[in-house]
Amino acid sequence: MKNFPSSANSPNKNSVGPLTSPSIPIELRVRYSETDRMGVAHNKNYFEWFELGRTEFCRQQGISYKDIEERGYYLVVVESFCRYKRPLHYDECFLVWTSLRNITPKKAVFVYELKTREGQTLIAEGYTVHIAVDRNGAVSPLPGDIVEKMKPPS
Amino acid sequence: MKNFPSSANSPNKNSVGPLTSPSIPIELRVRYSETDRMGVAHNKNYFEWFELGRTEFCRQQGISYKDIEERGYYLVVVESFCRYKRPLHYDECFLVWTSLRNITPKKAVFVYELKTREGQTLIAEGYTVHIAVDRNGAVSPLPGDIVEKMKPPS
Amino acid sequence: MKNFPSSANSPNKNSVGPLTSPSIPIELRVRYSETDRMGVAHNKNYFEWFELGRTEFCRQQGISYKDIEERGYYLVVVESFCRYKRPLHYDECFLVWTSLRNITPKKAVFVYELKTREGQTLIAEGYTVHIAVDRNGAVSPLPGDIVEKMKPPS
Amino acid sequence: MKNFPSSANSPNKNSVGPLTSPSIPIELRVRYSETDRMGVAHNKNYFEWFELGRTEFCRQQGISYKDIEERGYYLVVVESFCRYKRPLHYDECFLVWTSLRNITPKKAVFVYELKTREGQTLIAEGYTVHIAVDRNGAVSPLPGDIVEKMKPPS
Repeated sequence: MKNFPSSANSPNKNSVGPLTSPSIPIELRVRYSETDRMGVAHNKNYFEWFELGRTEFCRQQGISYKDIEERGYYLVVVESFCRYKRPLHYDECFLVWTSLRNITPKKAVFVYELKTREGQTLIAEGYTVHIAVDRNGAVSPLPGDIVEKMKPPS
Repeated sequence: MKNFPSSANSPNKNSVGPLTSPSIPIELRVRYSETDRMGVAHNKNYFEWFELGRTEFCRQQGISYKDIEERGYYLVVVESFCRYKRPLHYDECFLVWTSLRNITPKKAVFVYELKTREGQTLIAEGYTVHIAVDRNGAVSPLPGDIVEKMKPPS
Repeated sequence: MKNFPSSANSPNKNSVGPLTSPSIPIELRVRYSETDRMGVAHNKNYFEWFELGRTEFCRQQGISYKDIEERGYYLVVVESFCRYKRPLHYDECFLVWTSLRNITPKKAVFVYELKTREGQTLIAEGYTVHIAVDRNGAVSPLPGDIVEKMKPPS
Repeated sequence: MKNFPSSANSPNKNSVGPLTSPSIPIELRVRYSETDRMGVAHNKNYFEWFELGRTEFCRQQGISYKDIEERGYYLVVVESFCRYKRPLHYDECFLVWTSLRNITPKKAVFVYELKTREGQTLIAEGYTVHIAVDRNGAVSPLPGDIVEKMKPPS
């Protein structure tokens, strides 16, 4: 039996509550090359936008993702999910709100919400699951200071 | 409370069983531009590959996705998910196996498995959920002949 | 005999002079997904950045490219060129300076320079040639007010 | 004064003659995600297709580009050019014909022609100029055996 998330069988389209804090926003605008012949942003771009969101999240927490890699740690994506609520059109501005659901030395889960700039209507939401590996792809737990910096203040 | 698939909290890494039949394979090779600075294919490309898989699935069932759009129906993606099991390197060949988990006039769920060419080791797996809309994005149930053609023979 | 630009045979690597004014800058940052396994931004992304540059150029001249398309005119690319001077790395910030070399109702030529934020070192330079067509791809000269708005003040 | 190829000022749209031999074809199909809201393939994708063409060219000459990199040599793109003759639509099949205009230990120039599968109508043509560097980006002339393998038989 498949062990996919249950939504593969019965997608749940209810709206969701607020992200856990802190939630960091970035503002983006849909590029022409990100649209497809339906006239809206193609589904794969959302995962690039999630990445931009978590990059800025890390930077705001005081550690750039580039620095993490330069110290020899890589947060590879082992799972990614997106639920699309309404389309995004060319040249439209929107916000990506990023939050860290949880982090341990071995694993991190980021959660994302895309919202309209005006009114904060939900456009899409999703998550990515990451594990910490070294340059060779072997599991390599993150040092305590990185986990501490990324962890939301309690 | 968030209603994301439970795997956002506890990703399940067990291997999964075979796809429902028929399962259609396509062979792809990792493009240079699809790699990132880790030296492996970037996570967003998998959703483009899923799309290539379901395009060929439709074609094999006797109806090209282009024809579906030309008749005024669009299968927009409302949910997408991928679980990454092992990295893909530049110039590596792999297979995308695509299967249709279920289809009704209003909704279709495609399921995907990426496997190595030799040995059929699982590289990644995922699904996409689609709803049928018209050119303006309004829900528009698929005509019976399209559903019949895409539906796996029972 | 091929009538390609002569640089196909003997690329000229001299530095170039300043752009014709006005030259509009935008600031961008290299996305992780824009890097390739050499660790630098892939060559195809520069053409996406050029597009972002000319989009902002139009907006600053008082007419958004989206508006031009909504009035039924499309500035399709018939030629594009880029000369790469030095690589761009992940998370690096840079400027795209865009200038309009000339515009007539039927044709426009945009010129671009990518520069480092500090020091304004040249990273890359290029151009794109566009012709004005209608929704069906037939040549369709731009109305005077659009040409006037885009044309640099003399 | 700008030293761009003269076509930036007066693009030449005459058709061009046949490629120098050998010219290696690959067949591609336009992916949905490669289209934009005009309904045709976005201009940046042509440079990705050129790359696929020269990758296959090298493979056919007996040396994969991956092998070249594994031996420590990188053929970085220092110039790229494309002239677009007619649009490419979703799901359309086409051929990329790749030829090596010239190669020395320090530099290689590849030339490309995109043609329709039926009738071999010219869709686009272009070139890329490459210089050989080592892993650190320093100029590093290619060893003789690589140049010999890639060089067209005379």
